[in-house]
Amino acid sequence: MEAILYEGKAKQILHSNEASQVIMRFKDDATAFNGIKKASIKDKGILNNKISSKIYEYLNSNGINTHYIKCLDSRSQLTTKVDVIPLEFIIRNKVAGSMATRLGLNEGDLLNKPVLEICYKDDSLNDPLINDDHVYSLNILRKEQLDYCYKQVLLINDLLKNYFSEIGIILVDLKLEFGFDNKNNIILVDEISPDNCRLWDKETNEKLDKDVFRLDLNDLKDTYEIVLEKIESRY
Amino acid sequence: MEAILYEGKAKQILHSNEASQVIMRFKDDATAFNGIKKASIKDKGILNNKISSKIYEYLNSNGINTHYIKCLDSRSQLTTKVDVIPLEFIIRNKVAGSMATRLGLNEGDLLNKPVLEICYKDDSLNDPLINDDHVYSLNILRKEQLDYCYKQVLLINDLLKNYFSEIGIILVDLKLEFGFDNKNNIILVDEISPDNCRLWDKETNEKLDKDVFRLDLNDLKDTYEIVLEKIESRY
Repeated sequence: MEAILYEGKAKQILHSNEASQVIMRFKDDATAFNGIKKASIKDKGILNNKISSKIYEYLNSNGINTHYIKCLDSRSQLTTKVDVIPLEFIIRNKVAGSMATRLGLNEGDLLNKPVLEICYKDDSLNDPLINDDHVYSLNILRKEQLDYCYKQVLLINDLLKNYFSEIGIILVDLKLEFGFDNKNNIILVDEISPDNCRLWDKETNEKLDKDVFRLDLNDLKDTYEIVLEKIESRY
Repeated sequence: MEAILYEGKAKQILHSNEASQVIMRFKDDATAFNGIKKASIKDKGILNNKISSKIYEYLNSNGINTHYIKCLDSRSQLTTKVDVIPLEFIIRNKVAGSMATRLGLNEGDLLNKPVLEICYKDDSLNDPLINDDHVYSLNILRKEQLDYCYKQVLLINDLLKNYFSEIGIILVDLKLEFGFDNKNNIILVDEISPDNCRLWDKETNEKLDKDVFRLDLNDLKDTYEIVLEKIESRY
């Protein structure tokens, strides 16, 4: 029953015994710059599975509707099967990455209010930044659905800012994705890990996320292990 | 009193005898692709001054607050002095140009509802597409000011769709800019001409705008003369 339904850059989605559920398996592949930079980093998938499971358990226990059901083994989670909405929701608490480049701002600048962005998930178009009108013209979501996603993103950001702050980490930014379950409810999907958050050490501003791989700053496995240790120190 | 206050790609702004007013003078320069393609086209400035004057007179008479006071001579208009807001407001009735490229859509696709976009006016950044949160984080406008601009853009688009439709032209898209006058009112500024609208012949879909220069399709002067003739046929 382990036929691959879908294979992405860092994960596989496999059939489960239950039609409404799938298995999400974390690979060791690391990619950056829309797949231009690639590497396989031993045990990265195991680390991200552990980190993401802990974070999803925290979100579930705080009333967020997510696809996460349970951790199955070192690389796999049982999740609700969804139709993924082809949008990336990015929420930023400090300026970094593409926002700094796009607007000519400095990395690390504090934002008075979190900044929300949406990108259209399409590798052939390089996941372009889009706006609400583009979402409607592409018939991806209706206004009330998009507004619901925005509200969830703000709520999740507030929860995770606290979650990380308590273990000495600044949540700089965060990429989230949503999908429709078989009752047409919008729920949070994908992983939440140093692959799709920017996490900086509160004291030193040291980067504790995939930027260490993008920018060749540090060993990715060592870095993700630090994040996992800090998360496990909560329990 | 003709010292140049500001010189852009296609226009100069000169002092007038009145501190709250400036003279906008149209040059013959044509540029495209953020200045990479350049030419001087004899009498282009005269054509755009005539076209833009007629359009602004129509908007003023329909209650839109604009910077346009009167046409002074073949190349010049008297306008209200403003602090220009560094945003380009683009409104699209059909897919064309950067929207087609960004979203992988076909030029000419009809949109169910007009699509609004804002770009940050900064040549060094290539006038990037941005969203409302970026406007707030850059401290360019507050929410109620941005919402006012959006409402004005929709209203102006409705007025100009009709204006052009009556003379056999489809208004495909339109770029607008705003500024603050000395009472801090937001008013429409810049020109409205085939330099910053896409205009297609209703019968033949022939392009009647700067795309003929961008894409080397036709003589720019001949094309803009057709637009002016059609506009003058209204009077």
